[in-house]
Amino acid sequence: MADHEPRMCTSVEKAMELLSKRWTALIVFTLLPGPMRFVNIENSLPNISGKVLSDRLRELEAEGLIIRTVYPEVPVRIEYSLTDKGRDLSPLYKSIGDWAERWIKPEMDIHPSAE
Amino acid sequence: MADHEPRMCTSVEKAMELLSKRWTALIVFTLLPGPMRFVNIENSLPNISGKVLSDRLRELEAEGLIIRTVYPEVPVRIEYSLTDKGRDLSPLYKSIGDWAERWIKPEMDIHPSAE
Repeated sequence: MADHEPRMCTSVEKAMELLSKRWTALIVFTLLPGPMRFVNIENSLPNISGKVLSDRLRELEAEGLIIRTVYPEVPVRIEYSLTDKGRDLSPLYKSIGDWAERWIKPEMDIHPSAE
Repeated sequence: MADHEPRMCTSVEKAMELLSKRWTALIVFTLLPGPMRFVNIENSLPNISGKVLSDRLRELEAEGLIIRTVYPEVPVRIEYSLTDKGRDLSPLYKSIGDWAERWIKPEMDIHPSAE
């Protein structure tokens, strides 16, 4: 039966599976401005656990979207940065941003807090 | 502490949370060509359970991305279609497609099957 159903192009399907995994797209977005250390990525994504972030970073590295660089200093410094493949996702974030601007109302506190 | 960390624009964050939820982006993609019945969506996404698809469709309806239309026939016919907000995501899929074409190798069987 499944053979007769329409299937999307395999490479697009793979890309969407990768990017729609929880946190994946947000981690890549966070790294767009430049390399970051683990603790800084973690603090940029307030609700992620260290374990999950660690797993996702390893998956993104395996997929060739990020590079983990170890600087042999004391104490050792480890930074995560995007590869060309990862950085090339920026038009996608532009698309998301444009769409969000048109359709999503930010839930911002527009009232200045009382002092 | 969290107040001092960089935060992305709230509307983009909301959009990404919505789209990065498992299956959400694939369901919208599936509906781009036109309205579909539940069973056809289910068959287009081979690994989704009926329960999960039902939950996601309800969420997408609540977010205003899809409409559920009940046609009072016998037996009743129910179709799901994209709203303008949902259809306006098509540039996003174009971005994903372009990226996938550049970077993802499809795992296709390139050998014609023996007859």
